[in-house]
Amino acid sequence: MSIAEQAPAYIRAISPYQPGKPISELARDMGLVEASIVKLASNENPLGISPKAKEAIARAVQDLARYPDGNGFELKAALSERTGVPMSGIVLGNGSNDVLELVARTFLTPGAEAVLSQHAFAVYPLATMAVGAKPVVVPAKDFGHDLDAMAAAVTDKTGVVFIANPNNPTGSFLPGDRLQAFLEKMPERVLVVLDEAYTEYLPDADRYDAIGWLTRFPNLLVTRTFSKAYGLAGLRVGYGLGDAGVVDLLNRVRQPFNVNSLALAAATAALGDEEFLAKSAALNQRGMNQLTRAFEAMSLSWLPSWGNFVTVKVGDGDTVYRALLAEGVIVRPIASYGMPEWLRVSIGLPEENARFIDALKRVLVG
Amino acid sequence: MSIAEQAPAYIRAISPYQPGKPISELARDMGLVEASIVKLASNENPLGISPKAKEAIARAVQDLARYPDGNGFELKAALSERTGVPMSGIVLGNGSNDVLELVARTFLTPGAEAVLSQHAFAVYPLATMAVGAKPVVVPAKDFGHDLDAMAAAVTDKTGVVFIANPNNPTGSFLPGDRLQAFLEKMPERVLVVLDEAYTEYLPDADRYDAIGWLTRFPNLLVTRTFSKAYGLAGLRVGYGLGDAGVVDLLNRVRQPFNVNSLALAAATAALGDEEFLAKSAALNQRGMNQLTRAFEAMSLSWLPSWGNFVTVKVGDGDTVYRALLAEGVIVRPIASYGMPEWLRVSIGLPEENARFIDALKRVLVG
Repeated sequence: MSIAEQAPAYIRAISPYQPGKPISELARDMGLVEASIVKLASNENPLGISPKAKEAIARAVQDLARYPDGNGFELKAALSERTGVPMSGIVLGNGSNDVLELVARTFLTPGAEAVLSQHAFAVYPLATMAVGAKPVVVPAKDFGHDLDAMAAAVTDKTGVVFIANPNNPTGSFLPGDRLQAFLEKMPERVLVVLDEAYTEYLPDADRYDAIGWLTRFPNLLVTRTFSKAYGLAGLRVGYGLGDAGVVDLLNRVRQPFNVNSLALAAATAALGDEEFLAKSAALNQRGMNQLTRAFEAMSLSWLPSWGNFVTVKVGDGDTVYRALLAEGVIVRPIASYGMPEWLRVSIGLPEENARFIDALKRVLVG
Repeated sequence: MSIAEQAPAYIRAISPYQPGKPISELARDMGLVEASIVKLASNENPLGISPKAKEAIARAVQDLARYPDGNGFELKAALSERTGVPMSGIVLGNGSNDVLELVARTFLTPGAEAVLSQHAFAVYPLATMAVGAKPVVVPAKDFGHDLDAMAAAVTDKTGVVFIANPNNPTGSFLPGDRLQAFLEKMPERVLVVLDEAYTEYLPDADRYDAIGWLTRFPNLLVTRTFSKAYGLAGLRVGYGLGDAGVVDLLNRVRQPFNVNSLALAAATAALGDEEFLAKSAALNQRGMNQLTRAFEAMSLSWLPSWGNFVTVKVGDGDTVYRALLAEGVIVRPIASYGMPEWLRVSIGLPEENARFIDALKRVLVG
């Protein structure tokens, strides 16, 4: 028996996450010039990063031979001031992906179950499977979370429930009152992870205060990221807000230096940049209108989205994805999310959106 | 029962890793000016980072809103060219800490055992405990690994053996022929992790070619880091070299974007900077002489070290550590490594070493 066969069956059964194709890879594969490629595949901020974060990086770059502050004092202090959550209730991650994984490793064991929705973020089942636990996938309702069915799927074996709001890749949204009603129904022994990676894009009318619920629901963990509206995907930083006892356990499993020095510095600075966030959200809204109007003109179905992306029905998603690659446009096929006829398109700059629409027209007619 | 009590007992039993105290924290605690503080506590490179890495960071910093290349193509290609290991045999980590943890999560299950040495790097037992497996700690011989005793400790339950060479925090070294003899004795189903975090500091006479052994021993994984001689601790990047089947499994558990964009760019550039490595090793040798001569003059026992640090016997380590903090000098107490009478001191710049020696004299006399 080979050494690889020594790994448990649940590890060998994992299919790795398929990331959006990097620009450099497409350029290599197709012999294209990088600058000619439009990437709308990973829900990145087309405005880049906040000028405040840039300044902070320029300062912190002088001291990279030092290990990062493993406790993330300054970022946690800034997050605490902003959210009202004490520093002991904040855990930092190498992206919120890291926090999601810490949850699985801390609150799931081989044989336990995690409840999650069909078409929800791929990292939930991956992190669950990597600890030998079982993802219980609840059928979606209108491509969004069916909270009643999810509540009904909770059993004695359930350790964690994952909820993405807004959800990636479908863009669906659950109003705050429905989330609250769900939390009220949950047994206290089940950790509910509310993944708010896209929360900064919500219009004011849809905002709800999950952080304000934390004192009432110690089994709630809210996760957020600097990778989307804050534009820091390349640096890797996210966080979780919750009960101090829960956070203490997550911190025991956390790698001591999981968040790098530049990510800590950039996130601390970006947090206060309301102007950049507002600009990003406004650009996103305009781009969303641009794309959805074009889809309507082309008689394509699309899913209303509360995120910085929109999901559109194109027929054979993989074929259209490949044809778009040949046009130098990278979007995201989502067959692995059980949606083989759809593509997820991130909102880009107006000219990038236009490049995609033109390419899509050629591909669908061709 | 509170939600925190839902976590398994093996998670609740973990005491988190104690990192070296950051300069900013000491400054805060004691009201000191950061520039006045000397930190010799985390085996960091006192020369900073290579100029080539600096240039690469300046270029890559323009594109931080993009996710990193999750496959790390360019860094793996550079590592492959340099080591001769195919890209399929290379796994990248958020520091080598990340790779060590991937090993535990992939090759250990609750109830399995990992064999490691007394006084060896703290992350081995932490990563083992975090998956519910049992660290089997083999008594050290002369503060180093006792390979015969470690081989004898391997049972049917053993999934992984961890070996640090040189070892942190004792600085001990195992010659290549003894490592090879150990590998020959190991059952093929046991993964042997050879952690070479400090290998770049070895004098030519002690060098051995573990990478050349990989084809003979598919159960060998060699781990290395850019945090020490390469000076990139703040950016977080390390790697593992091994059998493609083993690496494939580690990659399934690995977070898709575990290594950030600047770390990838900086490491790729730093890899070719032989001049910087040679300068770092030479500075280290001079500093090692400076410190050990001073210890001899003070009649203090110290352990011969092959790393960028030296461990010295001072009496009550914690008391001396605290007295040094009051002098603005941070070193590392290692009571948690079972060595309460010793301190680990990283080699700094000549003037930093001198500041430490002066402070130590005052503290030990006082």
